[in-house]
Amino acid sequence: MLNNTLHFKLQDLSKITAYANRMNDELQSGDIGYYHLVDTSLNLIQESKEFIAKKSHIKNIVLVGMGGSSCGVKALKELLFDSCADKNLFIIDNTSSHIFTHTMQKLNPEETLFVIASKSGTTIEVISLFKLIIAHFDFKCMNLHKYFVFITDLNSKLHKLADELNIKCFFIPKNVGGRFSVLSAIGIVPLSFCNYDTEALLKGAKACFIDFFEKKDTTILQKAYHYCTHKNAHINVLFSYGDAFKAFNEWYVQLIAESLGKKQGYKRIGLTPVALIGARDQHSFLQLIMDGPKDKTITFLKIKDSYKAPLIPNISFNYLQNCDFTNEINLHNLLNAQCDATAQALITENLSVDIIELETLDAWHCGYLMYYYELFTSACGIMLGIDTYNQPGVEVGKLILKNMLSK
Amino acid sequence: MLNNTLHFKLQDLSKITAYANRMNDELQSGDIGYYHLVDTSLNLIQESKEFIAKKSHIKNIVLVGMGGSSCGVKALKELLFDSCADKNLFIIDNTSSHIFTHTMQKLNPEETLFVIASKSGTTIEVISLFKLIIAHFDFKCMNLHKYFVFITDLNSKLHKLADELNIKCFFIPKNVGGRFSVLSAIGIVPLSFCNYDTEALLKGAKACFIDFFEKKDTTILQKAYHYCTHKNAHINVLFSYGDAFKAFNEWYVQLIAESLGKKQGYKRIGLTPVALIGARDQHSFLQLIMDGPKDKTITFLKIKDSYKAPLIPNISFNYLQNCDFTNEINLHNLLNAQCDATAQALITENLSVDIIELETLDAWHCGYLMYYYELFTSACGIMLGIDTYNQPGVEVGKLILKNMLSK
Repeated sequence: MLNNTLHFKLQDLSKITAYANRMNDELQSGDIGYYHLVDTSLNLIQESKEFIAKKSHIKNIVLVGMGGSSCGVKALKELLFDSCADKNLFIIDNTSSHIFTHTMQKLNPEETLFVIASKSGTTIEVISLFKLIIAHFDFKCMNLHKYFVFITDLNSKLHKLADELNIKCFFIPKNVGGRFSVLSAIGIVPLSFCNYDTEALLKGAKACFIDFFEKKDTTILQKAYHYCTHKNAHINVLFSYGDAFKAFNEWYVQLIAESLGKKQGYKRIGLTPVALIGARDQHSFLQLIMDGPKDKTITFLKIKDSYKAPLIPNISFNYLQNCDFTNEINLHNLLNAQCDATAQALITENLSVDIIELETLDAWHCGYLMYYYELFTSACGIMLGIDTYNQPGVEVGKLILKNMLSK
Repeated sequence: MLNNTLHFKLQDLSKITAYANRMNDELQSGDIGYYHLVDTSLNLIQESKEFIAKKSHIKNIVLVGMGGSSCGVKALKELLFDSCADKNLFIIDNTSSHIFTHTMQKLNPEETLFVIASKSGTTIEVISLFKLIIAHFDFKCMNLHKYFVFITDLNSKLHKLADELNIKCFFIPKNVGGRFSVLSAIGIVPLSFCNYDTEALLKGAKACFIDFFEKKDTTILQKAYHYCTHKNAHINVLFSYGDAFKAFNEWYVQLIAESLGKKQGYKRIGLTPVALIGARDQHSFLQLIMDGPKDKTITFLKIKDSYKAPLIPNISFNYLQNCDFTNEINLHNLLNAQCDATAQALITENLSVDIIELETLDAWHCGYLMYYYELFTSACGIMLGIDTYNQPGVEVGKLILKNMLSK
């Protein structure tokens, strides 16, 4: 289970019911596709597994995608480091040369399947990387279908090219936005290829769906309302305890920043996400939270289960006896105690704190957690009165780039 | 060379001269140790190299340190991925169990030297990890000097333990704060052990010292003044182009957040650092910068030199011809064009932008860049009227932790 405790003042239900209704309307309308992926993506698992079963020579899956087409997959790969994946999953999510070259050097192309992911079908970085891969391995055009699959929108230009080249295509529903697409083909296909437990992932997300839409759990709405109506705190810190959360943190930042930073007429709206890793960043950003301006809310994210962690041994050194209070404590329990202690210090400073505790770190809980944050983002968007699902601001830069390079 | 162009209004020199004088006073007083490391750390290179030369069996260096005792080293390790290091450098900078266990599994203890780094000598995470390493490999107390060296303050409790156990100690000058310590023993010792070019690192930093204190280059002061007097923009975004900057970004966040987030009587002061990776985060945080509240300044960080990057091949696919404008462009030049295009889009939005361009990515430029940011932080601290070098806010959490676990 996911347990979310809110350490700030809750609102009367009357204040938030209207927003719950608006979300229900969004759900019922069918316009916002991600709500429904918990059911509609189930078929994709079977389709992916059947496809990959015929390619027993494949040992590496390489996902090439920017932003929403890689962020969530990377998060799940790192969160589920401990799972029963049976292939190596590589992710190329930038036009950074040394990572590209370094990754290519590790790959035997005859054991590798490249997944080219672009919702629009014309993401310039992805198409450029696609061409670089072809050149790097000197693939012939007629053989591309052996090495590549595409994930894109139905009838996109990339889909049309796939048809021409006989390349297998998986589709993202048109009404699923990039940063809400982790449970669509974008996540399900490469993760199923590698034998991650994508069924549990969808089941976890479905459990969150049920808690929110059917059991009417209001925690997400309360938290969203607090964030959206807070007069001073427009920076939302996610303090995740454990290195496995690094890529999840990036996914969180993308989801919040790109969804909730919007113009509304002449007004500029936005919450600023900041993501930290505990206990490490207690030696970094924490000082600013404690003593700096009170412009931040803080969510702590931790995992309860500690069964695989080593025990700090009962060694006592001269001069260091005042460090002996962690002796015989499980290392993961120390991490969680650091989380609790920091949360308590911030609550004492009267900052808005909430704590998310996952029972354990598995695909089910990851599905729940990601869906939780997607619903949270939708709720905030409705409360802020903006379009959560577009990203008009990034088009200018793309045009300038094209003009610069076309000269 | 490092070239920093400021795309915002500059001040009359008269406004910033007083601050330049204050920094000169800090330098002359000798109270702030990091200013002087560009000279005083030179001896450490020789000392480290002589020490490691006697241990030809060592193939792995494992640095165990939190915050300032690891952040800068990790940044340099990732920035200098391409250098002539002759040993593996591992960094344990968290109490996260799976990373600890995973790292230990990779190590043959007979080929490994563990570097325990704690300025105070009693950092609870570091001492706990020290004990865990001893237990993991079942080291005997009398043999610890074979496997460990310490980096700490002179006469700290860890130093005293080192003397008792005959463990080699390297020292951080007392007046060098943790987050300003990358050019002290903290960085120089493990990096010199691994044969990184620490001499060039210090020379680069010294070049920055000379530009600022001797040639009186005012760029840093102009930028600091703009940041500290900006009425609305209290979030400072560093947008670094290239995956090699990931750990450098974390170092930047620590330096700014922990130095400049301070109480001043009842007043709370602070600039909030946010660090991004381009081009990747153009598909994430950029939307918020473009359309969200104008509460952000943005620094772009890029590397000019592109000689090792592959060329995007001249392939034209049906349907995707509108992506052909990157054909025959070097991948690194594409990354830099993305940086320039994004910067131009933000300048057009009237946001405060500056661009740092490094000629190439080597130890000399890294030294220059890190010293640049340290001087910048000192300048901001003086302008904000706070104590840049302490971190009182994080003590409460440490006390709560001790109380919780001592029960």
